[in-house]
Amino acid sequence: MSKGGKSDQEEGEENMAAWLVGLNTLKIQPFKLPPLGPHDVRVGMKAVGICGSDVHFLKTLRLADFVVKEPMVIGHECAGIIEEIGSEVKNLVPGDRVALEPGIGCWRCDLCKEGRYNICPDMKFFATPPVHGSLARQVVHPADLCFKLPDNLSLEEGAMCEPLSVAVHACRRANIGPETNVLVMGAGPIGLVTLLAARAFGAPRIVIVDVDDYRLSVANNLGADGVVKVSTNMQDIPEEVERICEVMGAVGVHVTFDCAGFNKTMSTALSATRAGGKVCLVGLGHNEMTVPLTPAAAREVDIIGIFRYKNTWPLCIELLRSGKIDVKPLITHRFGFSQKEVEEAFETSARGGDAIKVMFNL
Amino acid sequence: MSKGGKSDQEEGEENMAAWLVGLNTLKIQPFKLPPLGPHDVRVGMKAVGICGSDVHFLKTLRLADFVVKEPMVIGHECAGIIEEIGSEVKNLVPGDRVALEPGIGCWRCDLCKEGRYNICPDMKFFATPPVHGSLARQVVHPADLCFKLPDNLSLEEGAMCEPLSVAVHACRRANIGPETNVLVMGAGPIGLVTLLAARAFGAPRIVIVDVDDYRLSVANNLGADGVVKVSTNMQDIPEEVERICEVMGAVGVHVTFDCAGFNKTMSTALSATRAGGKVCLVGLGHNEMTVPLTPAAAREVDIIGIFRYKNTWPLCIELLRSGKIDVKPLITHRFGFSQKEVEEAFETSARGGDAIKVMFNL
Amino acid sequence: MSKGGKSDQEEGEENMAAWLVGLNTLKIQPFKLPPLGPHDVRVGMKAVGICGSDVHFLKTLRLADFVVKEPMVIGHECAGIIEEIGSEVKNLVPGDRVALEPGIGCWRCDLCKEGRYNICPDMKFFATPPVHGSLARQVVHPADLCFKLPDNLSLEEGAMCEPLSVAVHACRRANIGPETNVLVMGAGPIGLVTLLAARAFGAPRIVIVDVDDYRLSVANNLGADGVVKVSTNMQDIPEEVERICEVMGAVGVHVTFDCAGFNKTMSTALSATRAGGKVCLVGLGHNEMTVPLTPAAAREVDIIGIFRYKNTWPLCIELLRSGKIDVKPLITHRFGFSQKEVEEAFETSARGGDAIKVMFNL
Amino acid sequence: MSKGGKSDQEEGEENMAAWLVGLNTLKIQPFKLPPLGPHDVRVGMKAVGICGSDVHFLKTLRLADFVVKEPMVIGHECAGIIEEIGSEVKNLVPGDRVALEPGIGCWRCDLCKEGRYNICPDMKFFATPPVHGSLARQVVHPADLCFKLPDNLSLEEGAMCEPLSVAVHACRRANIGPETNVLVMGAGPIGLVTLLAARAFGAPRIVIVDVDDYRLSVANNLGADGVVKVSTNMQDIPEEVERICEVMGAVGVHVTFDCAGFNKTMSTALSATRAGGKVCLVGLGHNEMTVPLTPAAAREVDIIGIFRYKNTWPLCIELLRSGKIDVKPLITHRFGFSQKEVEEAFETSARGGDAIKVMFNL
Repeated sequence: MSKGGKSDQEEGEENMAAWLVGLNTLKIQPFKLPPLGPHDVRVGMKAVGICGSDVHFLKTLRLADFVVKEPMVIGHECAGIIEEIGSEVKNLVPGDRVALEPGIGCWRCDLCKEGRYNICPDMKFFATPPVHGSLARQVVHPADLCFKLPDNLSLEEGAMCEPLSVAVHACRRANIGPETNVLVMGAGPIGLVTLLAARAFGAPRIVIVDVDDYRLSVANNLGADGVVKVSTNMQDIPEEVERICEVMGAVGVHVTFDCAGFNKTMSTALSATRAGGKVCLVGLGHNEMTVPLTPAAAREVDIIGIFRYKNTWPLCIELLRSGKIDVKPLITHRFGFSQKEVEEAFETSARGGDAIKVMFNL
Repeated sequence: MSKGGKSDQEEGEENMAAWLVGLNTLKIQPFKLPPLGPHDVRVGMKAVGICGSDVHFLKTLRLADFVVKEPMVIGHECAGIIEEIGSEVKNLVPGDRVALEPGIGCWRCDLCKEGRYNICPDMKFFATPPVHGSLARQVVHPADLCFKLPDNLSLEEGAMCEPLSVAVHACRRANIGPETNVLVMGAGPIGLVTLLAARAFGAPRIVIVDVDDYRLSVANNLGADGVVKVSTNMQDIPEEVERICEVMGAVGVHVTFDCAGFNKTMSTALSATRAGGKVCLVGLGHNEMTVPLTPAAAREVDIIGIFRYKNTWPLCIELLRSGKIDVKPLITHRFGFSQKEVEEAFETSARGGDAIKVMFNL
Repeated sequence: MSKGGKSDQEEGEENMAAWLVGLNTLKIQPFKLPPLGPHDVRVGMKAVGICGSDVHFLKTLRLADFVVKEPMVIGHECAGIIEEIGSEVKNLVPGDRVALEPGIGCWRCDLCKEGRYNICPDMKFFATPPVHGSLARQVVHPADLCFKLPDNLSLEEGAMCEPLSVAVHACRRANIGPETNVLVMGAGPIGLVTLLAARAFGAPRIVIVDVDDYRLSVANNLGADGVVKVSTNMQDIPEEVERICEVMGAVGVHVTFDCAGFNKTMSTALSATRAGGKVCLVGLGHNEMTVPLTPAAAREVDIIGIFRYKNTWPLCIELLRSGKIDVKPLITHRFGFSQKEVEEAFETSARGGDAIKVMFNL
Repeated sequence: MSKGGKSDQEEGEENMAAWLVGLNTLKIQPFKLPPLGPHDVRVGMKAVGICGSDVHFLKTLRLADFVVKEPMVIGHECAGIIEEIGSEVKNLVPGDRVALEPGIGCWRCDLCKEGRYNICPDMKFFATPPVHGSLARQVVHPADLCFKLPDNLSLEEGAMCEPLSVAVHACRRANIGPETNVLVMGAGPIGLVTLLAARAFGAPRIVIVDVDDYRLSVANNLGADGVVKVSTNMQDIPEEVERICEVMGAVGVHVTFDCAGFNKTMSTALSATRAGGKVCLVGLGHNEMTVPLTPAAAREVDIIGIFRYKNTWPLCIELLRSGKIDVKPLITHRFGFSQKEVEEAFETSARGGDAIKVMFNL
């Protein structure tokens, strides 16, 4: 709340953020907010999750074509409490608990106008250079990208709308419904939210594949109809495809989500999917892939690309509110917002193992 | 016409066909027709084109998973004249000139019932083992797969409905229309009919790419808006993509048809297509491909598989009848139906060069 | 099942069926079966439901353009046990319990081939003149239209796949999913299965409207999120639309299923549906309607027509098997297959009131 | 263009506009422009067409739910020359000739974000109260809604992009392509541009219907494949449908555009369209309609609502540039921008007759 007519920000001393200042180096430092526009809100951050892309930036200072050239505030899976609203904001008031959609389209290009703002070439997205992220005490954000949380959802669940959005967008693009048998390659955080989302979209049978027993046991607990443990060896693909198809049953796999994105997972996906089905490439592991593209195409198995999400927050919130999806079991580790805890949290997330989602409570 | 109550077939001596009897060996031999069912017609073949798959079977006795184990009549691009009709046939009479759709779905599986009969696992398709083809004096075929030709179309144009159907099916699956800029990789027979079909579907700008100057000149004459000559060297991709995009213009490529299907063509296709676009894999060159799948997926460039066609004959006939498409320039060589000419015709087709479509006149 | 090499049918004396022989007149009389084709099965009928259209034929000898000119066996919602299979049937064996899809497409017209066989102009459909129905001891039917029931489903539930199919087809055409708020006009048998199907397709919020308190209470018990009682008075529409929108909540109605099909229900549907939404006309009450079409069109509210169903049995069986839908509460009355009981059953169904679905056990 | 650092506007004396000040009363009066935002441009208007809705506002001060309560500048079909650009505008420079899309979405509501900004509830649209129109010497407008005209297009053709956009949007929503036979009800300005657009989208056969011989002769000249003269008498519908279907030919009507929107045109449209087809309601004549909705729905003939357009300018410009569409024959009358000529122009447009499109040259 602003005190005596001045916002916290105007006082210039209180907003701290986690800056990526160099390879493997995060520093909590002051972060000056931009002025509050008429359609903006100022949000006090309360829950911020760590995403694989955050870790990737920390370890390499790059991701795909994006390179961190200047110090940048990190973080983009977040929820908080409205502290101040712009003069034209009508849908929110200070005190509202909100989940934040991290990307701002330009609304002037043809992709934005056609409703595909997620692939807008001028998008401004939290923690994608040169745009700052949201692992900060406060951020300023457009009000229409802040979605009010119902009373029965925690701020952590609000932050989980971000990874869940990836899964929801993938389920929408693949047109998942009550007659779509689903195969998920990879039981990491994205594979697991994809399992949950596909279930909520009505998928009657979901089989999930991983190399790791622990992750498969988590998938089992989250309601997978079948799990298949695989190797990292390309030679095993034919036998593994056979096992996957056996576990799936006679109707076969209509849609496969490759949430890993490696030569082997994608090759398995293309072979295991039935004629006329779809493979969604969600995980972005390998850049170049060697895969049996032609036999898949000759069965009209389409490959659908997935980039982030669009218009997903209202649905995610509804799926969580109604209990159709419960993301709480995915939050395995929690940290506070001190220099030391930030470092520990990122190490925990990078280590993997039993860490699925690592969350900051600010 | 049957003479004195006996059909030609019943006399047992007249129906001759081109049999694939072994590697590189075609023999004209008698071909006994099946009985004429109530919904069947007997067609006197008049024009049969040679397809790349026919040549492939001749040279290797296989194609994809199909293996020629027994002698098989070859040929599937065809048109002829109705000689006899089954008792329940109402849409045709003897003397009608017809183009034949070569594949018969089972109409009992879920894919057939959903309208995707082209990927029916039990399809019976001319000259796909163990089903006989149509390079024969006569064939028996379901009446509903024989489409009457209007007076202004020749039987050769009727036979060309088959390769044109591949292009039409690809344009439909890619949703080509008056706002789809199209890139075609490969200016062989399928690339060229794809150019013609995309134009007929309204594509405002079509650029075509090949390694061969002659083929590009043919594409130019058929109305390509731009042609780009490329090498077979993978290292040239970035520079070639740049040239393609320059020739296409600022809006970019919405849909690419890869009518070759090699590592290089597919890699070029994926890189040259704009965000949110589609790449259709039509040509089936390489089986396994090494391609930059992930950067394409991250721009939501989808890969659409194409297998044969469905429900395309009426549209092909209409496009030819109305003059929106002229396939006659593609028919470069003609042969009669003697043992010697059959051998020469297949050699001509296999040699490529200036041979685009080689046609038999029976 | 056949005794001494002769089928029941061959003995010529045992197959009895309920014939519609005149206005309000049903007679149980012998019904000679057609010969068993290679892809056919003979089914011993065990459960047959009464549909509103059956009653309509009984009371008027017509429905839409169909007129009963000759005595006709009635009934089309059915399930039974396989007694004999044709020589080519591979998916079924005698003793299998099956639900029957009642319509046989021609598979030669363009609509069948495009996957819209439900609107095939040459469809042969149980109890649609001049085709006989299935309220009989035995029927002969194509094997691919007989769907095996899992052990946990009763034959009555199998028969319920037919009305459920109407709802499933409507939900598919309207693209119902986890972000589609649904309004159902009419809580009769079709309105109630639509409620159940929309829920199974993931609809987050379903409001149902009727003039009858009892039916609304049934809807409530079946899981409607809200019910609204309305009058039959056109003047009440604005106030009722307001109440419906209030019960639905701020996001509004994305899709309305008009399961009644009267001036008033359709006018309400068009007014209550939000911009960009859809109204599905499922019930066929009035023929000509006076409705505010233009204001709806100006908000791009589309009107989707629904005729029967296609490819719905596997999904219906899966939804029942998995427990996502329970149709048992809808079966309110049961009758045996004597002349007297047949008459009583139809009277019960025609009377309405607390009779939702009336079922024969043969 | 600005002189001595001051824009024309800043001098406060030059911008004149046609104000709707009362029933049947238009006055040319000064119109003060809003300040130029960073993403805006100031356009010197050069060509403005009169739309039926403009006339409707003049004659009644209302249209649908919109009521003119304060004096309002009229006009929305327009093109002009850029005079000044905002600080952030990159795609335009002063001197560029542009066509203007008249509606500004809010880009904050779910409809805008899903790409359906044409039905945004907060849209600001030229000459839709309380928003001022563009029949003025100058207007300020967002740069991304001003589309540069190629050299071979006149400013009048630029203004024609607006009515053409209605047709293009309708063709897109109805998915017109090379296998869609089209029926157009009404040969007024919108019916005629729909004819042109459907042709450009590839429609193989287009039949157009009107009560007026002159309009039908214009349609003939513009390339209709058939014209059918009808009465205004409801009793004639069956006979007229028969004639329409005869003129269309055996395949039938896939899509009907009702560009009139009366009981009779809509009833004819619903009856004439084949099973599985679509009727697009484009013209908004009657508010409430009495039409045979149920028989159409039972053949799965869908009714598609059309409201304005979205993302159509680039396509319209391309269709005009390439010569696929020529709108020049539709411009039948031209007027200057004096008080007297404005009055005459509106009278001419209101009178109809041989006036198709009436255009101001400013």
